[in-house]
Amino acid sequence: MKLTRTWLDLNEIALRETLFHVANGYLGVRACPEEGAPEGVHSIRGAYLNAFYDTYPIQYAEKLHGFPMESETIVNVADVQGVKLFLGGEWFDPCAGTLNSFEQTLDMAAGQYIRHIVWRSPKGRETEITFRRMASFVTKELFTVHVTILPKNWSGDIRIVSGQNGDIRNDGDPNDPRKASEAKHVLRTVESGNNEQHMYMQSETISSGHTVACAVTHTSGDAFSLEFHSNPIENTATLSGRAKKGIESSFVKWCVYTDSRRHPSTLSTAVQLVKSCAETPIETWYDKQRAFLNEFWGASRVILRGQPSLQAGVDYAAYTLLQSAGQDGISSIAAKGLSGEGYEGHYFWDTEIYMLPFFLLTHPQTARKLLEYRYATLEAAKRHARTLGHPTGALYPWRTITGNECSSYFPSGSAQYHINSDIAHAVCTYYFVTGDLEFIRDKGADILVETARLWLDVGHWLDGQYRIDGVTGPDEYTCLVNNNYYTNLSVKYHLQYTLYLCGLLQQVYPELSLEKRYGLSDKEFKEFENISRNVYLPYDETLGIYAQDDSFLSKQKMDLPSMSRECFPLLLHYHPLVFYRQQVCKQADAVLAHFLYEDGIDDAVIRRTYDYYEAITTHDSSLSPCVFSMMAARIGEPEKALSYYMHSIHLDLEDKQGNTEDGIHAANMGGSYMGIVFGFAGLRIRPDGLSLRPCIPHSIDSYAFPLRYRGRRIHLEVTQKTVTLQADGPEPVNMTLYGMVYPVTDQAVSIPLDNHPSV
Amino acid sequence: MKLTRTWLDLNEIALRETLFHVANGYLGVRACPEEGAPEGVHSIRGAYLNAFYDTYPIQYAEKLHGFPMESETIVNVADVQGVKLFLGGEWFDPCAGTLNSFEQTLDMAAGQYIRHIVWRSPKGRETEITFRRMASFVTKELFTVHVTILPKNWSGDIRIVSGQNGDIRNDGDPNDPRKASEAKHVLRTVESGNNEQHMYMQSETISSGHTVACAVTHTSGDAFSLEFHSNPIENTATLSGRAKKGIESSFVKWCVYTDSRRHPSTLSTAVQLVKSCAETPIETWYDKQRAFLNEFWGASRVILRGQPSLQAGVDYAAYTLLQSAGQDGISSIAAKGLSGEGYEGHYFWDTEIYMLPFFLLTHPQTARKLLEYRYATLEAAKRHARTLGHPTGALYPWRTITGNECSSYFPSGSAQYHINSDIAHAVCTYYFVTGDLEFIRDKGADILVETARLWLDVGHWLDGQYRIDGVTGPDEYTCLVNNNYYTNLSVKYHLQYTLYLCGLLQQVYPELSLEKRYGLSDKEFKEFENISRNVYLPYDETLGIYAQDDSFLSKQKMDLPSMSRECFPLLLHYHPLVFYRQQVCKQADAVLAHFLYEDGIDDAVIRRTYDYYEAITTHDSSLSPCVFSMMAARIGEPEKALSYYMHSIHLDLEDKQGNTEDGIHAANMGGSYMGIVFGFAGLRIRPDGLSLRPCIPHSIDSYAFPLRYRGRRIHLEVTQKTVTLQADGPEPVNMTLYGMVYPVTDQAVSIPLDNHPSV
Repeated sequence: MKLTRTWLDLNEIALRETLFHVANGYLGVRACPEEGAPEGVHSIRGAYLNAFYDTYPIQYAEKLHGFPMESETIVNVADVQGVKLFLGGEWFDPCAGTLNSFEQTLDMAAGQYIRHIVWRSPKGRETEITFRRMASFVTKELFTVHVTILPKNWSGDIRIVSGQNGDIRNDGDPNDPRKASEAKHVLRTVESGNNEQHMYMQSETISSGHTVACAVTHTSGDAFSLEFHSNPIENTATLSGRAKKGIESSFVKWCVYTDSRRHPSTLSTAVQLVKSCAETPIETWYDKQRAFLNEFWGASRVILRGQPSLQAGVDYAAYTLLQSAGQDGISSIAAKGLSGEGYEGHYFWDTEIYMLPFFLLTHPQTARKLLEYRYATLEAAKRHARTLGHPTGALYPWRTITGNECSSYFPSGSAQYHINSDIAHAVCTYYFVTGDLEFIRDKGADILVETARLWLDVGHWLDGQYRIDGVTGPDEYTCLVNNNYYTNLSVKYHLQYTLYLCGLLQQVYPELSLEKRYGLSDKEFKEFENISRNVYLPYDETLGIYAQDDSFLSKQKMDLPSMSRECFPLLLHYHPLVFYRQQVCKQADAVLAHFLYEDGIDDAVIRRTYDYYEAITTHDSSLSPCVFSMMAARIGEPEKALSYYMHSIHLDLEDKQGNTEDGIHAANMGGSYMGIVFGFAGLRIRPDGLSLRPCIPHSIDSYAFPLRYRGRRIHLEVTQKTVTLQADGPEPVNMTLYGMVYPVTDQAVSIPLDNHPSV
Repeated sequence: MKLTRTWLDLNEIALRETLFHVANGYLGVRACPEEGAPEGVHSIRGAYLNAFYDTYPIQYAEKLHGFPMESETIVNVADVQGVKLFLGGEWFDPCAGTLNSFEQTLDMAAGQYIRHIVWRSPKGRETEITFRRMASFVTKELFTVHVTILPKNWSGDIRIVSGQNGDIRNDGDPNDPRKASEAKHVLRTVESGNNEQHMYMQSETISSGHTVACAVTHTSGDAFSLEFHSNPIENTATLSGRAKKGIESSFVKWCVYTDSRRHPSTLSTAVQLVKSCAETPIETWYDKQRAFLNEFWGASRVILRGQPSLQAGVDYAAYTLLQSAGQDGISSIAAKGLSGEGYEGHYFWDTEIYMLPFFLLTHPQTARKLLEYRYATLEAAKRHARTLGHPTGALYPWRTITGNECSSYFPSGSAQYHINSDIAHAVCTYYFVTGDLEFIRDKGADILVETARLWLDVGHWLDGQYRIDGVTGPDEYTCLVNNNYYTNLSVKYHLQYTLYLCGLLQQVYPELSLEKRYGLSDKEFKEFENISRNVYLPYDETLGIYAQDDSFLSKQKMDLPSMSRECFPLLLHYHPLVFYRQQVCKQADAVLAHFLYEDGIDDAVIRRTYDYYEAITTHDSSLSPCVFSMMAARIGEPEKALSYYMHSIHLDLEDKQGNTEDGIHAANMGGSYMGIVFGFAGLRIRPDGLSLRPCIPHSIDSYAFPLRYRGRRIHLEVTQKTVTLQADGPEPVNMTLYGMVYPVTDQAVSIPLDNHPSV
């Protein structure tokens, strides 16, 4: 369960900083070289705390009413990665001398990133050096760097300069809409010093006034003597000792971050915490980390046999999701997790649609935390709805940290009203899987009702159909349309499930008044019902497919096959008007709709819709291949599904989008999990339980994974011949397999595989 | 022919600075008080040179491909308005002491703005003071301030401090999309001084590197002694003299501006020119000004009898158009003329559609200059087309000074492709009115072919119809639509007229090869023909009207009657998504289409279309009322036409949009002229001549105006009973009147009025 690179590639420094980052949902540190990147080599040095942000004004040359005035950005916090080694007087620089051995490893069972180097210095000193990093899953404020040094052929002085640097900027690029538009100074160090044991630093965000503290201490047994230097923006500790040929010496750099959004007194907490952490031997921390991950993998690991690279990929996906997921109710999962600054640490709809399902089916308590984050920002969503002219209801922001809309380009930002139904979908499936009705009563129903209510104001009736104009669907290459199929179909289920869960609440809690608790009147209840039944779904009779929106199918088709690779992604090479006016998709839209909501839709329509949109989709969005993979499995084409799945699995590991250096594509990580569970295994979550329609490509021997459902643990295994289901106890759990209901118990049920279950 | 205000209103200082500005198409000076605006009173001190601009970077938080990186702004140049009077030791301040008389007058026959004040100082000195300003139409670099001082009841010292200030900023407001987003420093003074006769100043724009010079001198006979003070950003001349009770003294401040876009050596030219100007007595200049205007009014004045306020309004409209129109081929008419900084001095489509017709019918040489400006920017329009993804053709920018696109919000900016056909319309009607085929051959056809060619790449064929998707029509409350009726209908005529004129060129100049000269192949020629015949025009059978676009009529209607006045203009009170998704119009769109292109459209359809859109139009754009006025006349409702016309006439004079302080609405000035000529008189310009369908509201006794047509002068008079046409010579000119062709000669033709000509 390791990601490994065994060569140094200066062109991949920034990419690997992302791939090998360590994070725990609270803090994330990019895998920047401790000694610093070589001069002229692209590196994005960064460490981040989830949801720790600064604000900055958004500049518009032409500002229209209701445009957000302020954006939020995750903050690159004090840099503690610096550890410079002077070995027998020679500075350790991998670019000087000779690398006899070089290996970067992300050990996902141990929860460590390890860089192991055998370096021969220009003067011939050979030294084995290991850097071992951990972002603790147990104490989330803790990040450690553990360095061991083994002189192979020399003895002499060792000097180590370990830094804490507060002079930090955020990254930016004015020409890439996926990054911040400029490199910003958003943090100011207000206190910095040392007490001869700890280095500490307190910084303040320039605008939002939040504080972050960082305390650092070192342990090394008696191997090294320590000396500190401090100035207002930087602290260094110099460790001096004597190396003996063949004898390993080591030290641990303990770093604790605290922030004012989560810690009442940041600096004193950080100092106390780093002190107490360092009192426990690092090996004990490693044991705790491993124990935590042992539980994690036990509850979630997908086992794929016959394709080792897929196993590595799906492990990496699950692990980075874990690394990314905020679990404190004020943070969530950013588009890049905690691995980089792409999309400025913002949360989007893909948290709910692409990432939450992994947690829902393996660690439902984390899924709940993610939904609690949305509940915590419901008031902001109400305000956002007012800003967009809606007198009632809530509209979740397209991109945000605190709940305020941070999208400055509304045609593919705030206009994506579907986010409301996406969040509602997550709330509902959370209940369907967990049965946690208390959450629905206390928080979920508030989200459901307020987001559902918005649709009453957005749409309108025409000829007995409910129509929703002037919104943008998931496909951002087509903006501001009428009756986006995905949106309208989502609304249908959003309202239907809201009514269903409200009905259930009334049944289970008869004393609960929907009107008093959620302001849900009978009239509104009936309107929800009426709209849910009669929302307009654009269908093209000639083609026999659903239309992405009212006008999509009458546009000119973009001639994708004739275009060279350099034209993609279109958004970086064409003015938006070019793709807005043509039939071309950045990502799945109608196809995604059929993944989420397939009830009552004919298989032939699903297939034709898939075929039609597949031909005009560029997959310029990382959210696309995994959906096409899952839906290829759905229409009975497991080999095609595998081909898309390979793309998804390798998207970051092989940098297929070309921008992994700015961070992992976290939604695609969710998609890599879903590609097995919802794709090949055909899982669907329904109000009445889970259903499965497994298939398997020829080149995979078998796959298997655990699921949590209503407190039970279920295990599925699919081979080329059979599908086996087993629960964790004798009480039966009903599961639907190929349309038949099976009571699953601890006695495994095996039935023959049907590799084209829907054809 | 005067605009007069006879009271001082501190709340109207900025408004009147606009209304009483003096300009000559090259330079414009707002009517700011010479003594400075009182402390705390809103004033926008400004002077501008047409097309003299600076560039600045456009900031985007999310920049997409092809968005313009740089905008242009007109530059507020050195301020020469300052003239402070110290009368017997008391500073002249209208807010101190008593105003026994106060009058501001724009004398449109004399070409002067006069402020006449009888002021009693706090200490009881009564003085009659006259400030007389002129922007010379004869020597366009020249601006004069002529001050006369008559002590009524005192004798004593007079001291006058006359300034030239180079420390200037442009105006701005981050919350109003109609203004620059911030107050910018775009000019830096590089040289400043005096030679004991002249004060001079040379300044440089910060980014574009253009220079502007300003030279000032004073003449006063022997009445005053002169003293100069100079510093790097300011010069002052102090005039000292002795006043005698009952004896008038006066001086003239002569100011000349030159700029590097038009003058090879700015500073020396300015100094020489101001010297030579001042050698001619000011009265002679006034005579020249009057003679110029005498010719102007003779060729253009509309005479309205029975409604003095309308006469004043239509005079003001014609005069401000004259003041605004650049005539040097590198400038045009900005949205605010030279009266203010609204829309940053940019040129839009409304120059061609709303303003050029006035010049075309009265001073065709100016119309030609305006078209030459477009010809001069054709290469930039080709580059702009490439930026928007079109391999061939030209796309004129939505807003510009030099020809580069300056619109940072493309949904109601660059997406308004109709500007191509609007400019083509002006080129064609220029030929239809003047018969100047040489212009078409040398410049016009290049514009026509390059702009027409673009449509081949924008649209596409579907079911035998040519469709144009993903553009925005004139109505900016509905953006990014398919098959905007106005656009498609414009394209039809754009292509048809292009073919017509190309055919004519071949006939008249048989040696001219369309292919060699304009790259127009037979294939392209046929494609133009085919598209022109088969462009899709969305028509709603049920309503019997043309649809603004494919989806417009299926949207919800905005409930305008129930909304309070504070909700308007919608663009300042609602997020654009609110109006984008509803049936509501900022301005005429389909209705404007029927004004420009009515051939073959049934009168009943024109009427129904008018009625339908009238009910959902807010007229939040100043371009709207005049079109509804003209089309009300067209559908036989002269009284309704008058009501809209009154709105148009008073739009700036009564500050109906609330932002006249930022400059006049120049397009509406054109509309005020067109309201008579195209509205009540029903003029239409066709390839085969002019046609008229006059009507008249009851409350107007008569109206009359001159027209130029193919070198001839024609005079039309319409009374409550008759329509009279007369030409300037015995050779007949064919004119169509109520559908009948009359040969008009110097013998007046009179026929009875038909007040509902189209019903």
